[in-house]
Amino acid sequence: MNRNEWIAAVKPHLTEQRFEHTLRVARTAVQLAKRFHVSEEKAELAAIFHDYAKFRSLDEMRQLILSSSLPNDLLLYHHELWHAPVGAILVRQEQAIHDTQVLGAIHYHTTGKAHMNKLEMIVLLADYIEPGRSFPGLEEVREAAQDDLIRSCWLTLRNTIQFLMGKGSRIYPDTFHAYNDLTKQINGGY
Amino acid sequence: MNRNEWIAAVKPHLTEQRFEHTLRVARTAVQLAKRFHVSEEKAELAAIFHDYAKFRSLDEMRQLILSSSLPNDLLLYHHELWHAPVGAILVRQEQAIHDTQVLGAIHYHTTGKAHMNKLEMIVLLADYIEPGRSFPGLEEVREAAQDDLIRSCWLTLRNTIQFLMGKGSRIYPDTFHAYNDLTKQINGGY
Repeated sequence: MNRNEWIAAVKPHLTEQRFEHTLRVARTAVQLAKRFHVSEEKAELAAIFHDYAKFRSLDEMRQLILSSSLPNDLLLYHHELWHAPVGAILVRQEQAIHDTQVLGAIHYHTTGKAHMNKLEMIVLLADYIEPGRSFPGLEEVREAAQDDLIRSCWLTLRNTIQFLMGKGSRIYPDTFHAYNDLTKQINGGY
Repeated sequence: MNRNEWIAAVKPHLTEQRFEHTLRVARTAVQLAKRFHVSEEKAELAAIFHDYAKFRSLDEMRQLILSSSLPNDLLLYHHELWHAPVGAILVRQEQAIHDTQVLGAIHYHTTGKAHMNKLEMIVLLADYIEPGRSFPGLEEVREAAQDDLIRSCWLTLRNTIQFLMGKGSRIYPDTFHAYNDLTKQINGGY
């Protein structure tokens, strides 16, 4: 499939608004891929399909988590976290995308995880800073993303955790491990 | 040993300032124990010895972590976290305190952990709200501690994590699990 075919393949699965968001994430991911020397094609492919499962029913996602190799503890956390790992499974099954790097970037675009590779960081970051977004703290992340992938990704995770804690929500362990891992990469010891 | 003997036993191990703090934590812990129906004697004992290892050398603490059953991953985190688990070991060895509940409350008074019992929560909380403390957000915790042990402990952990993230520090996993656990106890699902 080429770019236009990917876009045609994802469109029926998204609302109009989410489709526009997806196109902005894809453009942002390509810019970041160029900037940080990652395959632009993989970044674009992962970004186009990052929200593929966003509008599946909770029942379908729950079943897929239970019947696949995905960690079942996802079911103990907010269902907002399900569409990313479920999406990685479904684009493989339904769209025959088998590139494990692309699937990883889709899988972890919401939670992050420890030891993310550059492609995974780029899709997570692109989803957070795409030009349609607007919330406090975002400009600092956009600025950091001009030249520092790790720091901008770290800011994204820190903001996300603080936002969730402000709401009194639990934090999925992968997100916390991602924060700790990038903190260590940035400042070494502690 | 009685109360005065405990105090005499801990005093040589602390600076004057830390000793005064310890007495305030002990008074606060007794109040909380009364309020939340926990053994006042155990709360007082744990509070008196909670900072027992605070002024041990990093070398001694490192050796003890390596040679004991304590998790070695402590060494990968800030040494500020070492004195609590090391203290639990040392008060057993040097002060012949064998009450596992008291030792647990000493062990977890800085990091917390998932599934804390009331005594553990009380010592962690007393250390945070004792009347000598003063920082933003503290009054809300003191107020919650008037009638809600879980919520005041949850606020303590949330504030601590946010403070550490604001400094760009890593979070010890037990602290994060404690936060998630109490969040679940408070609001159920997420």
